[in-house]
Amino acid sequence: MRHSLLPACLSLTLCFGLSFAQEQQYAIVIHGGAGRISSNPERRAERERILKHALTTGQKMLQEKRSSLDTVEAVVRILEDSPMFNAGKGAVFNAAGTHELDATIMDGSTRSTGAVGGVTTVRNPVSLARRVMTDTRHVLLVAAGADRFADNYASDPMIQRVANSYFSTEYRRASLKRVQQQEKQKESDSMGTVGCVALDMNGNIAAATSTGGLTNKKFGRIGDSPIAGAGTYADNRTCGVSCTGIGEDFIRNAVAYDVSARMAYKGVSAKTAIEQILSSKEHQVRGGIIAVSHDGQIVTEFNTPGMSRAAADSGGRFEVHVAE
Amino acid sequence: MRHSLLPACLSLTLCFGLSFAQEQQYAIVIHGGAGRISSNPERRAERERILKHALTTGQKMLQEKRSSLDTVEAVVRILEDSPMFNAGKGAVFNAAGTHELDATIMDGSTRSTGAVGGVTTVRNPVSLARRVMTDTRHVLLVAAGADRFADNYASDPMIQRVANSYFSTEYRRASLKRVQQQEKQKESDSMGTVGCVALDMNGNIAAATSTGGLTNKKFGRIGDSPIAGAGTYADNRTCGVSCTGIGEDFIRNAVAYDVSARMAYKGVSAKTAIEQILSSKEHQVRGGIIAVSHDGQIVTEFNTPGMSRAAADSGGRFEVHVAE
Repeated sequence: MRHSLLPACLSLTLCFGLSFAQEQQYAIVIHGGAGRISSNPERRAERERILKHALTTGQKMLQEKRSSLDTVEAVVRILEDSPMFNAGKGAVFNAAGTHELDATIMDGSTRSTGAVGGVTTVRNPVSLARRVMTDTRHVLLVAAGADRFADNYASDPMIQRVANSYFSTEYRRASLKRVQQQEKQKESDSMGTVGCVALDMNGNIAAATSTGGLTNKKFGRIGDSPIAGAGTYADNRTCGVSCTGIGEDFIRNAVAYDVSARMAYKGVSAKTAIEQILSSKEHQVRGGIIAVSHDGQIVTEFNTPGMSRAAADSGGRFEVHVAE
Repeated sequence: MRHSLLPACLSLTLCFGLSFAQEQQYAIVIHGGAGRISSNPERRAERERILKHALTTGQKMLQEKRSSLDTVEAVVRILEDSPMFNAGKGAVFNAAGTHELDATIMDGSTRSTGAVGGVTTVRNPVSLARRVMTDTRHVLLVAAGADRFADNYASDPMIQRVANSYFSTEYRRASLKRVQQQEKQKESDSMGTVGCVALDMNGNIAAATSTGGLTNKKFGRIGDSPIAGAGTYADNRTCGVSCTGIGEDFIRNAVAYDVSARMAYKGVSAKTAIEQILSSKEHQVRGGIIAVSHDGQIVTEFNTPGMSRAAADSGGRFEVHVAE
C-alpha cells in the first residue's frame, strides 16, 4: 500500500510544483547557425562573446517580465548587428556581389507572423518582419517591394536604412571568391543563420530567424528563414522553433511546424519530435533546430558537426557553445 | 454464427477489392478558387466549360498511365491559359497596375517541390515552378530573379515568355478600379486561384497551385500559393493538397502540410482532417481545400459561399461545380 501511494504523492507534488513554476518561469534559446566547427580561435572567441551578450540581454528582458516577442526581436537584432553571423552586417554575398536578407518573426499567442525576403537596405530585417506582422494583413513581402514597405518607417528608429555595402565584410567576400573559383555558379551552404526562441513569464512563446541565405545565391532564391512553418514557428500550446541548415530541406518537410504538429498530435516532447525529424532517413534534413516548449523545456539539436547556440532559463541554466 | 461470419466475408472481399483497385485506380481534383457565387451566367458557363475541358484532359492522361506530375502541370496550364481564373492570363492587377504571379508544384513520391513568386513574364508559372524543382537545388525563386531564371529556357516550349500586358483582362481591370475607388490602398481578397491534385495508376500523388494573388496587392506580397506546406503539399504516404482563400491564414497554420500531418499522426482521413481545419475557431482559415488521399479518396471542402471545382476518378466519378 505504501508503495502504491508514494508515486501518487510524488506526482501530485510534481504537478503542483510544475504549475507554480509555469507562471513564473522563462526560457530562452539562441542559435548562430549550424555547420562545421571553426578552426579560427579569434572568430570563435568573438562569436562566443556576442552570443553571451545576446543571451544576457534576452535573459534580463525576460526577468523584467518583458514579452517574448520583444525579447526575440532584441536578441536577433544584436546578432544581425554583429559581423560574425550570416544575418544583417556580415551576411553572405549573392552571385551579384550584393546582399539579400530574409527574416521572420512569429507570436505564439496568436500565431500572427510576419516575414521579409530578399531585402537589401534594412539594417535589421527582423524588425521589418515585425512591422509586416503588426501593420499589414500579409505575412510575407519580398524583394524590392519589401524595401519599399520599409520606406513607410522613415522616422522609426527600429527600421534603420543602410546602403547595401553596409552588410559587406572581407570574411564573406573571401567566401564568395572561394565559392566562385571552386566551381562556376556553385552556391555554398549557409553558415551562421541566427534565431531565437523565448518563453516569457506570461507563458507566451515567440520565435524569430534571420539570414543572408547562401553564398553566391542567384535568381532571387528564398530559403526557409522567411517562411513560417518551414524555418520558424511558434504556438503557445506546443512550442516555438527556429531552424538553420539547408533551407530547402526545411521547406519541403515543413520542419518548424512539424515539431509543433508532432507534439500536438502524437503527444511527444519537443526534444523527441526534433530528434525524430533530424534522424529521419526520409526527411534528410541537414542542419539544426532550437526550440522552447510551452513548459519551458529547451532543445538544441543538430546533425551537422557543430551549431553555435546559447540557452538560459529561470532554473539557473546559462550556457554558450560556439561552432562555425 | 452466420451473422458473425457474414461481415468477415464481406470485409475480406472489400479488402481484396480495394487492394486490387489501388494498383489500377486514379483520381483527380481541380479547384478554380473559393469565394462568392457569381451572378454572371456567361462567366459561369465559360468557367464550367474550361473546368470540364481541364478535367477531361487530366482524366485522359491518368487513364493513359501518364504521371500525376505531368497531369497536374497540364491541367494547371489549361487554367492559366484561360482568362476566367486568377492565374496566368486573367490574373488580377496589383497596385501598380501590373501582374505578379505565384505557383508551386510538388511531387509526392519524393516530396520534391519547386515554386516561383512574383514572376511577371512567364505565361505558365506552374511550368517554371517545375523547372525550379527539377533543375535547381532550390524550392522558391522570387521576383526579378525568377524571371531571370526563366531566361535559361529560351528554347523550351513549356516556358513561353510574354509581355506583362498579356495577363490583363478588362474584367480584372474593372476589379482593380473598384477596389481602388472603394478605399484608398485597400487590397481585395483573391478569387479564382487554381489548383490540381492527382493520384496516378502507379500510386504517385502530385499537387500544383497557381495564382495572381490579391487585387491591388503591394510591396511584393507573397501569399500561400508558392509555399510548399502552406498552399500546396504532396506526400504519397498521406495525400496531395491544394488550397485557395486568404493566403495568410494558410501560411500561419501551415494548412496544406497540416492535412498530411493529421492523417499521419492522428490517423484521420483526409476528409476529416480538412473538415477539422476549416471548422476550427482557432485556425480561422477562410477558403477552400482540395485533396486526394493515397487510397484515391477525393475531398473538396470550403467555408466560403462557393468554390469552383471538378473531380473524376477510376470509379466513374466525373463532376464539375462552378462558383465565382
